[in-house]
Amino acid sequence: MDPAINYCCRCAAPVSLVVPPGDTLLRHVCPACGAIHYRNPCLVVGTLPVWEDRILMCRRAIEPRRGFWTLPAGFMENQESVAAAATRETLEEACARIELEAVYTMISVPHINQVHVIYRARLLDLDFSPGEESLEVALFDEAAMPWDEIAFRTVAQTLRYYFADRALGQFGFHAESLA
Amino acid sequence: MDPAINYCCRCAAPVSLVVPPGDTLLRHVCPACGAIHYRNPCLVVGTLPVWEDRILMCRRAIEPRRGFWTLPAGFMENQESVAAAATRETLEEACARIELEAVYTMISVPHINQVHVIYRARLLDLDFSPGEESLEVALFDEAAMPWDEIAFRTVAQTLRYYFADRALGQFGFHAESLA
Repeated sequence: MDPAINYCCRCAAPVSLVVPPGDTLLRHVCPACGAIHYRNPCLVVGTLPVWEDRILMCRRAIEPRRGFWTLPAGFMENQESVAAAATRETLEEACARIELEAVYTMISVPHINQVHVIYRARLLDLDFSPGEESLEVALFDEAAMPWDEIAFRTVAQTLRYYFADRALGQFGFHAESLA
Repeated sequence: MDPAINYCCRCAAPVSLVVPPGDTLLRHVCPACGAIHYRNPCLVVGTLPVWEDRILMCRRAIEPRRGFWTLPAGFMENQESVAAAATRETLEEACARIELEAVYTMISVPHINQVHVIYRARLLDLDFSPGEESLEVALFDEAAMPWDEIAFRTVAQTLRYYFADRALGQFGFHAESLA
């Protein structure tokens, strides 16, 4: 949750909520120094790492959804590419080395100001282990997938696409928005 | 350019630059109220609107790259989907009505903390006109494309993919990062 914008982060003056000239939306604007404090959606980026017919999943050690299963993913950082973020998050959350394949899903989650992007990836070895934000890391085939304990709707949707596409023998790219 | 983070936007205390517990990167943290002030990449979203063999372009009325040609695009806002942002920006910059087709390019621009996402789109009518941030809006076929006056590398790259894919008769999805 982003901190409320009550004061200007540049000069500490109390901000006003106004529509700047040429804009159409209310923004937090500093009447003292003129700074405009925009808030924009964040990218959450990760991978669907595959080993034979199984997928690497992480059980979350942190809120939200502690104890639930997810794909390795997290917030993209400044100064990195989407691909670099996906690889880094997979290493951080699952201590797993992968080779990225194609971008697989891009799912907007407007009510929480996020866009989730997941790559398909090839898991390079079985030396994975829980990173600091994971309780457990494990491979699941389709029959064993813990559907009732998936952390996020975007992850469940990505997994459903994966199994459906795999059955068809062809992986597309899926872009959509959650209601 | 985002304002410098000198003070906490929640409580106005001067912030410190520290690595929070469990994190790996320096963040602006408020020692008074504990707020962590993250900065993350922004999504710039737009369309490549097509009418017959021509593409709708906008000549920019604002910096950066005032006077140069671009595809209709802009910053995605909170509370909207990527698709909604692409449609809105096309209406705002070119007063153009479109039908979105597939997501076409996703290009990371790490040195400016942006990810540019462009959809292919079908222009629905010829009643377009310059929005507030455009000097001029026009249709260009491949021969007339003003290659030396394109505003951004991600736009030039998207146009090159488009003409190459069109020649092949098949449009893929292209994801990459600018160096």
